Amino acid sequence: MKAVRLARYESTPELVDVADPVITSPLDVIVRIGGAGVCRTDLHIIEGQWASKTNVALPYTLGHENAGWVAEVGSAVTSLAVGDAVILHPLVTCGLCRACRAGDDVHCTASAFPGIDSDGGYAEYLKTTARSAIKLDSSLQPVDVAALADAGLTAYHAVAKAARVLRPGEKAVVIGAGGLGHIGVQVLHALSAAEMIVVDQNADALALAKELGAEHTVLADGSQVDAIMDLTAGAGAEAVLDFVGEGGALADGVASLRRAGNYYVIGYGGSLDIPTIDIISTEINFIGNLVGSYNDLAELMVLTAQGRVALHTSTYALTDFAAALDDLDHGKVRGRAILVP
Amino acid sequence: MKAVRLARYESTPELVDVADPVITSPLDVIVRIGGAGVCRTDLHIIEGQWASKTNVALPYTLGHENAGWVAEVGSAVTSLAVGDAVILHPLVTCGLCRACRAGDDVHCTASAFPGIDSDGGYAEYLKTTARSAIKLDSSLQPVDVAALADAGLTAYHAVAKAARVLRPGEKAVVIGAGGLGHIGVQVLHALSAAEMIVVDQNADALALAKELGAEHTVLADGSQVDAIMDLTAGAGAEAVLDFVGEGGALADGVASLRRAGNYYVIGYGGSLDIPTIDIISTEINFIGNLVGSYNDLAELMVLTAQGRVALHTSTYALTDFAAALDDLDHGKVRGRAILVP
Amino acid sequence: MKAVRLARYESTPELVDVADPVITSPLDVIVRIGGAGVCRTDLHIIEGQWASKTNVALPYTLGHENAGWVAEVGSAVTSLAVGDAVILHPLVTCGLCRACRAGDDVHCTASAFPGIDSDGGYAEYLKTTARSAIKLDSSLQPVDVAALADAGLTAYHAVAKAARVLRPGEKAVVIGAGGLGHIGVQVLHALSAAEMIVVDQNADALALAKELGAEHTVLADGSQVDAIMDLTAGAGAEAVLDFVGEGGALADGVASLRRAGNYYVIGYGGSLDIPTIDIISTEINFIGNLVGSYNDLAELMVLTAQGRVALHTSTYALTDFAAALDDLDHGKVRGRAILVP
Amino acid sequence: MKAVRLARYESTPELVDVADPVITSPLDVIVRIGGAGVCRTDLHIIEGQWASKTNVALPYTLGHENAGWVAEVGSAVTSLAVGDAVILHPLVTCGLCRACRAGDDVHCTASAFPGIDSDGGYAEYLKTTARSAIKLDSSLQPVDVAALADAGLTAYHAVAKAARVLRPGEKAVVIGAGGLGHIGVQVLHALSAAEMIVVDQNADALALAKELGAEHTVLADGSQVDAIMDLTAGAGAEAVLDFVGEGGALADGVASLRRAGNYYVIGYGGSLDIPTIDIISTEINFIGNLVGSYNDLAELMVLTAQGRVALHTSTYALTDFAAALDDLDHGKVRGRAILVP
Repeated sequence: MKAVRLARYESTPELVDVADPVITSPLDVIVRIGGAGVCRTDLHIIEGQWASKTNVALPYTLGHENAGWVAEVGSAVTSLAVGDAVILHPLVTCGLCRACRAGDDVHCTASAFPGIDSDGGYAEYLKTTARSAIKLDSSLQPVDVAALADAGLTAYHAVAKAARVLRPGEKAVVIGAGGLGHIGVQVLHALSAAEMIVVDQNADALALAKELGAEHTVLADGSQVDAIMDLTAGAGAEAVLDFVGEGGALADGVASLRRAGNYYVIGYGGSLDIPTIDIISTEINFIGNLVGSYNDLAELMVLTAQGRVALHTSTYALTDFAAALDDLDHGKVRGRAILVP
Repeated sequence: MKAVRLARYESTPELVDVADPVITSPLDVIVRIGGAGVCRTDLHIIEGQWASKTNVALPYTLGHENAGWVAEVGSAVTSLAVGDAVILHPLVTCGLCRACRAGDDVHCTASAFPGIDSDGGYAEYLKTTARSAIKLDSSLQPVDVAALADAGLTAYHAVAKAARVLRPGEKAVVIGAGGLGHIGVQVLHALSAAEMIVVDQNADALALAKELGAEHTVLADGSQVDAIMDLTAGAGAEAVLDFVGEGGALADGVASLRRAGNYYVIGYGGSLDIPTIDIISTEINFIGNLVGSYNDLAELMVLTAQGRVALHTSTYALTDFAAALDDLDHGKVRGRAILVP
Repeated sequence: MKAVRLARYESTPELVDVADPVITSPLDVIVRIGGAGVCRTDLHIIEGQWASKTNVALPYTLGHENAGWVAEVGSAVTSLAVGDAVILHPLVTCGLCRACRAGDDVHCTASAFPGIDSDGGYAEYLKTTARSAIKLDSSLQPVDVAALADAGLTAYHAVAKAARVLRPGEKAVVIGAGGLGHIGVQVLHALSAAEMIVVDQNADALALAKELGAEHTVLADGSQVDAIMDLTAGAGAEAVLDFVGEGGALADGVASLRRAGNYYVIGYGGSLDIPTIDIISTEINFIGNLVGSYNDLAELMVLTAQGRVALHTSTYALTDFAAALDDLDHGKVRGRAILVP
Repeated sequence: MKAVRLARYESTPELVDVADPVITSPLDVIVRIGGAGVCRTDLHIIEGQWASKTNVALPYTLGHENAGWVAEVGSAVTSLAVGDAVILHPLVTCGLCRACRAGDDVHCTASAFPGIDSDGGYAEYLKTTARSAIKLDSSLQPVDVAALADAGLTAYHAVAKAARVLRPGEKAVVIGAGGLGHIGVQVLHALSAAEMIVVDQNADALALAKELGAEHTVLADGSQVDAIMDLTAGAGAEAVLDFVGEGGALADGVASLRRAGNYYVIGYGGSLDIPTIDIISTEINFIGNLVGSYNDLAELMVLTAQGRVALHTSTYALTDFAAALDDLDHGKVRGRAILVP
């Protein structure tokens, strides 16, 4: 089959022919890819930013946001049939460790992360297991939801965590209304009655956020902290959801937080640098967010089937992967880029 | 009355005569001080580290860990009588704001913090309100529990928060078994069946921690992270309770944390400096801790009356306040220093 | 002033002249009533159903759902001014007991409940304290929100509790879409993405529920359990919110519950009679609900000011109280009846 | 192999020869039984009390509390090796449904319950899967811990749930200090600093409870509610853990509960019959408890290996099963009866 593989860090991946994946274990599932999301993390991987975190052996196939149709199942798989349309939880998990059994499968002690530390979905076929496939509602198509498998799931996971403690009348600041952020805005609107304040450097992104349910939008033109303070009667917001995680976003986000507030770290790239006295004197929390659990993804698919979450996508043929990566790097993708084999 | 007041930052406070406090509001309570704890925060205040956080007008009376006997009550106070032995919650709170009503009185929007931003308990009398006084069990004396009012309460608050999510078999690392830390060890032993690993530079502190319930102790001699990894099968601990918050403690603490683990920031002085990718790739949380609520202090007094928490103290006459501060600064206090008017 | 007082159980209350209430304590607040809700509990009180629960001394003034304008304040009240439009939390609480301090002021150990165990708001003036008054948003009028003070607050409290554990894709059955129920429907729609199934004997009530956000409605014609099972793929609902609490509602509700489901008891009148083996073999929970906290009411007022919760009301002059009670008893009130002095 | 099978309800089971179980699925595990607990539920099964709940086809092999050694594993099992000493979670679960993935495997939608609805452990061998086996610490023997697999797990599950919300100074009433109850007492002592009040009709059981950590014991001689009220300053207990669930225990338990208290239903046999007004006017909750999750059992094994939980057992040869059942029925078993093949 055709696959887009990374051979060396800081070089463009290549489209090559590789062997089709084969079933080797009773719970294995092979999926024909219907869509594979192109994510900023792919750029970070190519730059080598994840090399020491994953120790993946090069070359390997990129693509960690995948949806498609079941092509083949192992002997013990009873929950799926060939032809089922599915979205794939990004991790392949064991189901036996303490984390898996506690519903925290993201921290499975024996997981693989196709596209990150093993072969991913920039290809015609992908091997996963029955534990990772969620059947799609008949109203949903793989190509339309693929980017929800990781970007959307990360946004859902963080926002749902915030929504569980936000109350009516409380304020939530969303920093960054781009790829992940605009999903986060929709999820927060669906799950919470808190007042949403969305901050972005891009006026179009803010206009979209308002359409998707944001009560307030603030242009990040240097006066954003003042604007947030005005909107929160000088007290700051109970929650900051930071989808940027670099540049001035962190300092601004912390300055926008109310005493005892929660700062959800979602975007990454920069550093959090804060005196411990500032953490304890206001008693704020920093909450890490990786990606959601299988159940989180199932819940996100419910919101999607209900029409409460929708994703703008631009599709590219698998053979045009380099254009997709390039467009993403230069901010030219409308919504999320999806590769279609 | 006599009071120890700070007139200028970076200079020694002075013992002076000031007017006795008087009842001005129906819920006011005047307490005759039986003991006032001398805390490292007092040294930080004198150094000016809190000046920009509190904007307190100098001169003012230090002392934020207070216990004694009710001397006089306002017209609307029905829950206390003159002569009652009491420990004082460190904050004077309004009881009307959203935070007070939610049990989070530490974040009262109209609070005072005697000894920090208003006159404290290094004096013969202190004015507070009925909302801040907790009657002592007949087995307890003000001088013995005073230092629990803030140092102990902070430790209780952080440890109780951790204990609510720790399960049998999980590991909790306690960094620093000094003034606050050795109370934290006792509270964790009382509230949780998690396995405790205590880290300190001082072998005596570790010996005491073992006596107080620590399952494991680790000398902070440079190999402490390795030792913690050995004790956690290479996975790290589910919780790190950092009572130090400066120097190498932070980096070591983060390195000792398991994926999805919680880092409780309690001590302060240094800075947390961490790439956001390290927060999200392991999905760890940093939990700020200021001081506990009134109910937290009431619970700590229960543990104290039950004999589950005890405090080593060294008493000094109020007139010897300078010696107490000096001994603390030079690490010469056994347990906590208490001023007795 | 004029007041409607109950002199004997099982007899109609009477409109009489009584002395105006006077400030006796520094936190007292006297409110000029703008609206007082007429509630089914008033009928139960008149029938004597609450006599042994409250031991109130007759005669006393009914009316436990009150809103109006501040007429006079005690010497220590700083948070309110004469003329402020306010809704009153139904309880007068101490602010000092463990429950008040934990945000659970409904279980204050020294509370009064005007209209239930002391003089209420079927009158020109009512005495409460600063702890019970919530200032209204300028868009809200006392007469329009009065019935939210207890009926609405009860619905909010129960539904918000349920919403905190409901997830997208889960099902919530609302039994009874009348006075409380139709508020509950609006609150659930605002706070949760769970699928709502509303059951009622009245087709008009169901039509209204659908308008207010219910995904499914089921006529209680004897086949309602079957209908719910059809809507839940035979598994039952994760939550049942029972606003009826008598007749067949309880048995039907239990039969509609999924394994590990939560049954929220809100309405009352009947008995729960269930073999313990049925509780443990399915591991279901029964959650009692009295009325919400002050913060719950503040949150409900946010939803109301946002237009997410609205109440149909029929106003009656205070002098027409008997007609209001009679209409309620005979099911002739459209929405909630409100007495206006 | 030899197995004790139930052929008809209300008749004594029989020891018969049946075929050894065989591996049929890749995750199957066959365990050589080292000990099988004899439980009051076995008596209830024989009486037919569970017939309509399980619809099990007779004859089948009893025994739902099992521990032993791994005898054979399926082709996909990597977490266990032949010879490993294991305790078995009582359910065989799918690992794929929403409940399993949320850590609530007890409510797996495709589970089997050996000994309840399929062949159990009153036999030489038992078939389960890799998802149900927990390796024992080297300090533990199957025969000593077998009864913790269900009775102990049920007690742990309920008590751990209560411990998560109990605070120092709060009171927990344990009704029944027999087989399950005396494990519950040990677990509560290990996990919580709440004050424990144990109620039983048997003075020896109370003496044991005191040894195991109960602060107070109360003989159930008719004055137990008064005694509990005395011990709780007239307010009642924050939690009641009812290990009896029949006779007067329920009414007494409800009468012993504080406002807003939690009643944990664990024992069964009788009925809960309570007016809904009594549920809502005090806002109490009834919490069902079936059996714990796999992680619960793992945590209980930690407490057992630490020596915090110990079980009194009396062993019987498998061939003496009838004596064991008979002794249990007549209250003649010391601790828990264990069958050893």
